[in-house]
Amino acid sequence: MSTMTDGSTRVNVLTREESLHLLQHQSYMGRVGFVADGQLIVLPVNYLAEDDAIFFCSSEGTKLSALRHGAPVAFEVDANRPLFHSGWSVLVNGTAAEVIDLDVLDRLRRGPLKSWAVPAAQHWVRISIDTISGRQIPET
Amino acid sequence: MSTMTDGSTRVNVLTREESLHLLQHQSYMGRVGFVADGQLIVLPVNYLAEDDAIFFCSSEGTKLSALRHGAPVAFEVDANRPLFHSGWSVLVNGTAAEVIDLDVLDRLRRGPLKSWAVPAAQHWVRISIDTISGRQIPET
Repeated sequence: MSTMTDGSTRVNVLTREESLHLLQHQSYMGRVGFVADGQLIVLPVNYLAEDDAIFFCSSEGTKLSALRHGAPVAFEVDANRPLFHSGWSVLVNGTAAEVIDLDVLDRLRRGPLKSWAVPAAQHWVRISIDTISGRQIPET
Repeated sequence: MSTMTDGSTRVNVLTREESLHLLQHQSYMGRVGFVADGQLIVLPVNYLAEDDAIFFCSSEGTKLSALRHGAPVAFEVDANRPLFHSGWSVLVNGTAAEVIDLDVLDRLRRGPLKSWAVPAAQHWVRISIDTISGRQIPET
């Protein structure tokens, strides 16, 4: 973990490994940011993260379904402790696309990941982890 | 509150008033989504929301400082209860700009809103609430 040199900020910059650990083990709900019809959209989804990709469920007719056809996205997770003015956040940039690999689909369908919004959702979206970064504000 | 007619989804669409109430009273931490140098960024900030605008603190040299000069942004807040697969989210679209009105600045400086990252931050950013929408997944 490296502290930014500007003495006026309390922000620590996390390493890739620290960021990936937080993404994989310290949250289950993230926010997907993307552009649809020229509008910025940020929506929460429950997710699973592996070393090189994030997965979530979607279905037809939702804004998220636009991502099934491939789109640049941001994916953010965070947590905080307000009494301490502390917290962390991780930001991933990558490309979203529907999972069509049958082996991966089979593995996902046997796993715990389900859409809360559409219990019958059968489409899985994969976001490639092209870049990942993290920031932490320590407890005072 | 209106339920979407597609019987396969558990999502309720919230009214503008319900969404504004959640934004103003049920959260203190939201995520700002914007584009900087062609990259989608989503970052958490603590905030205050009035009827027509959201405010947060920023400082020089951060990604958020790009917003001081005016930019289209998305602002998202959410909460969830994982055991019930339930939750809600609110999405605002608007334009960010630095607060320069002295009366508004004076009011903000006397209020509780501070940057956690940069305690000495003296810049307030205002996001206009141009559109606001909300979704809720009720408890099962």
